[in-house]
Amino acid sequence: MVSKYVIGVDYGTDSCRAIVVDALTGRRIASAVRHYPRWREGLYCDPSRDMYRQHPLDYIESLEGAVSELVGRVSPEIVSGVCAISFDTTASTPVVIDAEGTPLALLPELADDPDAMFVLWKDHTAIEEAARINTLARSGSVDYTKYVGGSYSAEWVWAKMLHVLGGNPSVRAKAHSWLEHSDWMGALLTGCKDPVKIARSRCTAGHKAMWNAEWGGYPPAEFLSRLDPLLGEMRRRLPDETFTADRPVGSLTAEWAGRLGLPEGITVAAGSVDAHMGAIGAGISPGVLTRIMGTSTCDILVCPHEDIAGRLIRGICGQVDGSVLPGYTGLEAGQSAFGDVYAWFKNLLLWPTKEFGIETGEAEDKIIPRLSELASRIAPGSSPVSALDWFNGRRTPDADLGLKGALGGLTLATTPAMIFRALVEATAFGSRAIVERFLSEGVRISSIAAIGGIAQKSPFVMQTLADVLNMPVKVIDSDQACALGVAMCAATAAGIYGSLPEAQMAMAPPVGREYLPDAATAGIYSELYARYERMGGFFENTETK
Amino acid sequence: MVSKYVIGVDYGTDSCRAIVVDALTGRRIASAVRHYPRWREGLYCDPSRDMYRQHPLDYIESLEGAVSELVGRVSPEIVSGVCAISFDTTASTPVVIDAEGTPLALLPELADDPDAMFVLWKDHTAIEEAARINTLARSGSVDYTKYVGGSYSAEWVWAKMLHVLGGNPSVRAKAHSWLEHSDWMGALLTGCKDPVKIARSRCTAGHKAMWNAEWGGYPPAEFLSRLDPLLGEMRRRLPDETFTADRPVGSLTAEWAGRLGLPEGITVAAGSVDAHMGAIGAGISPGVLTRIMGTSTCDILVCPHEDIAGRLIRGICGQVDGSVLPGYTGLEAGQSAFGDVYAWFKNLLLWPTKEFGIETGEAEDKIIPRLSELASRIAPGSSPVSALDWFNGRRTPDADLGLKGALGGLTLATTPAMIFRALVEATAFGSRAIVERFLSEGVRISSIAAIGGIAQKSPFVMQTLADVLNMPVKVIDSDQACALGVAMCAATAAGIYGSLPEAQMAMAPPVGREYLPDAATAGIYSELYARYERMGGFFENTETK
Repeated sequence: MVSKYVIGVDYGTDSCRAIVVDALTGRRIASAVRHYPRWREGLYCDPSRDMYRQHPLDYIESLEGAVSELVGRVSPEIVSGVCAISFDTTASTPVVIDAEGTPLALLPELADDPDAMFVLWKDHTAIEEAARINTLARSGSVDYTKYVGGSYSAEWVWAKMLHVLGGNPSVRAKAHSWLEHSDWMGALLTGCKDPVKIARSRCTAGHKAMWNAEWGGYPPAEFLSRLDPLLGEMRRRLPDETFTADRPVGSLTAEWAGRLGLPEGITVAAGSVDAHMGAIGAGISPGVLTRIMGTSTCDILVCPHEDIAGRLIRGICGQVDGSVLPGYTGLEAGQSAFGDVYAWFKNLLLWPTKEFGIETGEAEDKIIPRLSELASRIAPGSSPVSALDWFNGRRTPDADLGLKGALGGLTLATTPAMIFRALVEATAFGSRAIVERFLSEGVRISSIAAIGGIAQKSPFVMQTLADVLNMPVKVIDSDQACALGVAMCAATAAGIYGSLPEAQMAMAPPVGREYLPDAATAGIYSELYARYERMGGFFENTETK
Repeated sequence: MVSKYVIGVDYGTDSCRAIVVDALTGRRIASAVRHYPRWREGLYCDPSRDMYRQHPLDYIESLEGAVSELVGRVSPEIVSGVCAISFDTTASTPVVIDAEGTPLALLPELADDPDAMFVLWKDHTAIEEAARINTLARSGSVDYTKYVGGSYSAEWVWAKMLHVLGGNPSVRAKAHSWLEHSDWMGALLTGCKDPVKIARSRCTAGHKAMWNAEWGGYPPAEFLSRLDPLLGEMRRRLPDETFTADRPVGSLTAEWAGRLGLPEGITVAAGSVDAHMGAIGAGISPGVLTRIMGTSTCDILVCPHEDIAGRLIRGICGQVDGSVLPGYTGLEAGQSAFGDVYAWFKNLLLWPTKEFGIETGEAEDKIIPRLSELASRIAPGSSPVSALDWFNGRRTPDADLGLKGALGGLTLATTPAMIFRALVEATAFGSRAIVERFLSEGVRISSIAAIGGIAQKSPFVMQTLADVLNMPVKVIDSDQACALGVAMCAATAAGIYGSLPEAQMAMAPPVGREYLPDAATAGIYSELYARYERMGGFFENTETK
């Protein structure tokens, strides 16, 4: 059997990582990273207004740098065996394009205009525009937000387009359509310049742009025109079809083959969203809630269509046919703060040293490990301290960003370890609330697969999660699950596998540690979870937000 | 007019302070302090069991030391002008005595037996015995605990007697009666050896020993015998009469005049409880809630009998005719944690430096001042953080030591100053709950007078208190208000004044800072207080304790 290789490119918030993978085994051969040069200098951003823009050249230069380094580090045989490439990116990170499919910031006259650049996922300049979209969506007979959690976010493409087109006549004058970052990469490398022919990711379209088969694709132009006539025009220039991540969108052009040092004509697959690619890389399958656990969590499930039978799952973020695995409904949920809650507590404890300029040496990095150690010695249910984890609002179930965190059961004898334990339990209870919602909506979950910094670094948190959920929790032994998921999609798109699940099976990363629930502890946590629900109910229903 | 002087002796938990005061003006001439030598060495105590005992020789030696120093530091004219002496002590701090009125630890064979010594107020060895008393008290037709808050404490005399008599045959064999520390000092200095004739403080008898006119004094011997027949015998050896603090109990014996260097035959007045003497020294009068504010608070009110008209004030600690000012009902309430709540938060923030041995220099002492400064810059009502102050349970209103503290409204942007402000507000709301209970029970309160460490050192806390209560708060400019109150009682007992209020008027210490409420801020706090009540209601009623 001739060896075959695929390249997965993972565009994160700060950098571009490229890996080359053996398509038959999933073995990683090499990886390389490049930071975005302009972004690193802080250009085109204004954190005081939550304005975050990225220049298309940052994506191009970092891609060339990372792939060239990769190619230089492996043998010519491997390079010539590369048969496909694909991408994941942050989302929604859209850009306005002209009639040639070119991001406007690549035009000389708009090269320094932030509104002509990609509007990064965490940019919050379109809050007012999102509110307008929500008002309009609720006024008609069809609520186009119903598959994206019932509320359109300022972080998503239509709000961002409304914002940059409404506030910038120079950009408006050249605006023909828009692209998500994930879609632009495919268009660029395959040389597709016609906006209506550029393949759009099912995942970004469904989760961020209200694309749904129920209304024949994106919301109708009549709806969008009421926000801005130009938005309606743009809608008419969008394709109705969208691409799942296992599909090819074209082949690598001679120009880009030369620029990257890769074989001409290899398959370029449809890009997708980083977290969803991470779920694929982590081996997602029906019944396995796949969690990217870091400062917050992104929780992804796939569900056979017949289990949902056309129903809307209440109170989650998104529900899109094929957004993760083709043939399954992809469901997205998440906790808006997870590791961030622990970081908040750590920073609280470090306040005196910061305030009074006390040298801490290496102690800062030891705080969370030491708190974890002390907290793990406290028997479950023996400390009276309780907590709510909504320190950054609640994303799911039932989004309410005005909700806040809390601590109960405090006494003069309460130690930092007791509080830390309560915070860890509360974030696990927040996870359980999501799991219970899925279960009560008829979506099966039998185990958890986890990737991300918390999953890798915090055994105490992961064991608590297993006990609270009373489910096994597998930590996937890969710090590059997103890029690996991209590689699986590229291999499938190249025809090496007949389906994405086959690629997942063959290319799966090893399972690292598996956390099994302790039955007695799980019983105790069921009681504490009931207390968490009561406390949450009080603060949610009684208090002003 | 010939100058006259009085000596006030304030026995605290750790030391004995004596002051000599000009009885006509209240001017302090000199003061001297002696620590208890055995106590300082940690003798006769076992903190792991909350066992705290004090040897009678500690009280004698510290008295001799402090008064001798005092006498040595003033002119012979002043010494010869001293016309009275009195005491305050901690309470309930009782001792078992023999038939000669001698504390058993002064007998050679029991000199080292902790059960033969004074059982300090904070000794908690009698928890089981207190529970027995409460069970019995609730089973009969009269609840003898009804004027002491409806629950007899392990810190009080009958529980402590039941404990030491039940567990120590050597002590039991010699036991004839008992004395409170405050009563023993008067007996000793006047040479009164007959237990039935030794004057008993109205204040300790009423607040700690269930003495009440309704049942003709102490609870009947039949009641006490059911706990222990010896307790019933002791009851039969107690006088029915008790002494308010303005009354003389005898005159100084030649022996004690010699030992102290004071004129023979001067008036010895009835002792009383430190906090109550502090209230007298702070100028307590009807309508002025007088608060001793430190780690916890002791809140004292006097009320004309006709305002209460024989009613029981619900949910406070104690209600005793004449326990503070003769002719008024003395009412006692308090918060079981006040400054301790701030100290808890400070220690929480210092955890990393303690845990990792980081040198903090002087920063530790700057934490609360700096938090106060930052918190004072936060506009009232502008921070979402809320708190409950029950970190050490709730003493009043409606004692429930199982209640706990809480924090709500926490976000990733919550700073230590926001939490500190919420804690300060919560302790002030706890104060307001006491004030509102008194008001709803028909007891008038129009202003606050405060003494103690927090009152002297924390302008931010005191201003918050004034705003939350919407009442002026006067801080009494004396760090020795207790000893001064004792001096006022001594002067009255010596006949220099016709009544204690006259002595208070003449001898009053200056008012230091007065905090006036801001009307707008008070309005905001009324809304926040309603939120505090809702949050308290949730944790009190819904949660297990």
